[in-house]
Amino acid sequence: MSNDTITRADLDDLATGATVLGTGGGGDPYIGKLMAEQAIEEHGPVDLIDPSEVPDDELVVPSAMLGAPTVMVEKIPRGDEAVAAFETLERSMGQEAFATMSIEAGGLNSTIPIAVAAALDIPLVDADAMGRAFPEVQMVTLTLGGIDATPMSIADEKGNSVFVNTQTNEKAEQFARTTSIDMGGSCMIATYPHTGAELREHGILRSMSYARDIGRTIREAQEDSANPIDALVEYVDGFKLFEGKVMDVARRTEGGFAVGEATIDGLSEYDGRTLSLDFQNEHLVARDSEHGVVASVPDLITVLDSETGDPITTEGLRYGHRVTVVGMECSEKWRTPAGLELVGPQYFDYDIDYEPIEDIYTELNK
Amino acid sequence: MSNDTITRADLDDLATGATVLGTGGGGDPYIGKLMAEQAIEEHGPVDLIDPSEVPDDELVVPSAMLGAPTVMVEKIPRGDEAVAAFETLERSMGQEAFATMSIEAGGLNSTIPIAVAAALDIPLVDADAMGRAFPEVQMVTLTLGGIDATPMSIADEKGNSVFVNTQTNEKAEQFARTTSIDMGGSCMIATYPHTGAELREHGILRSMSYARDIGRTIREAQEDSANPIDALVEYVDGFKLFEGKVMDVARRTEGGFAVGEATIDGLSEYDGRTLSLDFQNEHLVARDSEHGVVASVPDLITVLDSETGDPITTEGLRYGHRVTVVGMECSEKWRTPAGLELVGPQYFDYDIDYEPIEDIYTELNK
Repeated sequence: MSNDTITRADLDDLATGATVLGTGGGGDPYIGKLMAEQAIEEHGPVDLIDPSEVPDDELVVPSAMLGAPTVMVEKIPRGDEAVAAFETLERSMGQEAFATMSIEAGGLNSTIPIAVAAALDIPLVDADAMGRAFPEVQMVTLTLGGIDATPMSIADEKGNSVFVNTQTNEKAEQFARTTSIDMGGSCMIATYPHTGAELREHGILRSMSYARDIGRTIREAQEDSANPIDALVEYVDGFKLFEGKVMDVARRTEGGFAVGEATIDGLSEYDGRTLSLDFQNEHLVARDSEHGVVASVPDLITVLDSETGDPITTEGLRYGHRVTVVGMECSEKWRTPAGLELVGPQYFDYDIDYEPIEDIYTELNK
Repeated sequence: MSNDTITRADLDDLATGATVLGTGGGGDPYIGKLMAEQAIEEHGPVDLIDPSEVPDDELVVPSAMLGAPTVMVEKIPRGDEAVAAFETLERSMGQEAFATMSIEAGGLNSTIPIAVAAALDIPLVDADAMGRAFPEVQMVTLTLGGIDATPMSIADEKGNSVFVNTQTNEKAEQFARTTSIDMGGSCMIATYPHTGAELREHGILRSMSYARDIGRTIREAQEDSANPIDALVEYVDGFKLFEGKVMDVARRTEGGFAVGEATIDGLSEYDGRTLSLDFQNEHLVARDSEHGVVASVPDLITVLDSETGDPITTEGLRYGHRVTVVGMECSEKWRTPAGLELVGPQYFDYDIDYEPIEDIYTELNK
């Protein structure tokens, strides 16, 4: 396996791809990109290693930001609190981490671990634990594999820190969430310490290079004056769900989450129809006024600027924005009964039986 | 200084005295007593050492329960979570504790460290950090001495634990309070690690034996058919503030605290007057309908059963109860500008300038 590195030049593509996989959430990748840029500037490029390169018993420790993305936009981390959280966790394990990893492939949290890797001079593993973004700590494929979220180390930019051990990953979510609120709405965490062997069995593999490739695909189409959304749909084997104009976005911060709904009025072939998008940090359910649910968690729902093809987070959604909504299949790990119990529509209080997006799409286009 | 021990026989006196010093709060001493009894039964009596016996550089780690007393009554700790919290803190300090200590002289938290001491086979220091009970973590004389509340170790009876490091003791209170709520309303903590030298300078010394002596004074008066309230007032140099019948108790649990007001209609020499008592876990302000404020924090306000002389916690206050209210001077440490800023009436949002209880009493009885 040849060595790969993440350079400053890669960060734009990675941030774009991560916004696509972030399905509206995961935080504004711009902040994570800034942190990563600064760290690479200071410490040099970061090695991106294949999951196969982590020895069986060596430790991988994901690092992430936790909180409401709406807060994260205004409360930029100082940077060293992520490193502090990481090192506290290492000390408690009595073992140095071989590498760090993104807990989610979406948004901010795809790029923040790059800064941690650069500062600690350790590699970043080409993997994550969602294959997208999700709002809660326990919503990772590692949970499905029986890996504990704790010991979890939490730190803020003021020098406060909290170290958590819980009996369940749901309890870890609860503790971390209220701590993030006490810390002003967001915090940095090091969590889910696991081994190379566990990563290969329970992680989502090669999702960082996938995110970078998605970003590159969109950028190259833009440079070639091709249609970037068509290029994206083709590259990810996705589904174009809707095209229209944003008519309304209602959002509120609730229990540490950015919660809301967006309404999109159809244009061109979608004229006369309306798409409503519900989100809790990430888009959860897309409902077409004519066809009903056209996509739901855990499948990915991404909103892009219809003209530029740039992906848009829920915070970026504005009245009048011309957007295209694209759906993508989630990892097979999420489509198991245990996966759907953890992140299916019913977990988010929707009275919907999950149907794979490709089945809905095939049915509608018969 | 001769060796002193706490035996099962001492626990009743200690619990009674601690309820007097608890000024209505600090939790039901019955639960702490049960835990201590069980631990002494299992591990033998606990050495009560004088503060002068702790070497200058040795570590004293107070252990305590944190939460709303109304919850603690129903959610009895398993016992080993206090030990777990204590040992986690010791590990983080890289130093074994020479002794444990009560963080407050009042209620539950005066007896819980006895159980910890017995289980760990370490002595209990004859001291505390309030000389009474107070509702919040930062409200200790150790804060006035610049001692940090953190590292603080928190554990619940389900095996969950949280370890906190903060920049201020007020922030430690905030983190611990929300954690106690996440843990179902109460939790066990090990906090304020400090040295023997620091204890002697900034602690409240010999308050455990004082609490035990108060309990013994009340018990002996009861046994001799003397007036236990008169005996108490004489022993503590206190002030009888009011005597009457409880007409109303309004209470609610708010942000992890037991908050409320009690109204007492005067009897005998207090006939025709009403005393209102405000509390937040502990009694904060006593207002006489004729004379206005007759006592306020940080001075101690204690309610006792008029017939038996037994002290009553705010949870024990019932309509129709015949009670006597007694006031006691707080430690001089609390009467400094820094002390009053931390625990004076204005901290609790009262627009009252603190006046020492003995001054108010002298003025009224001129």
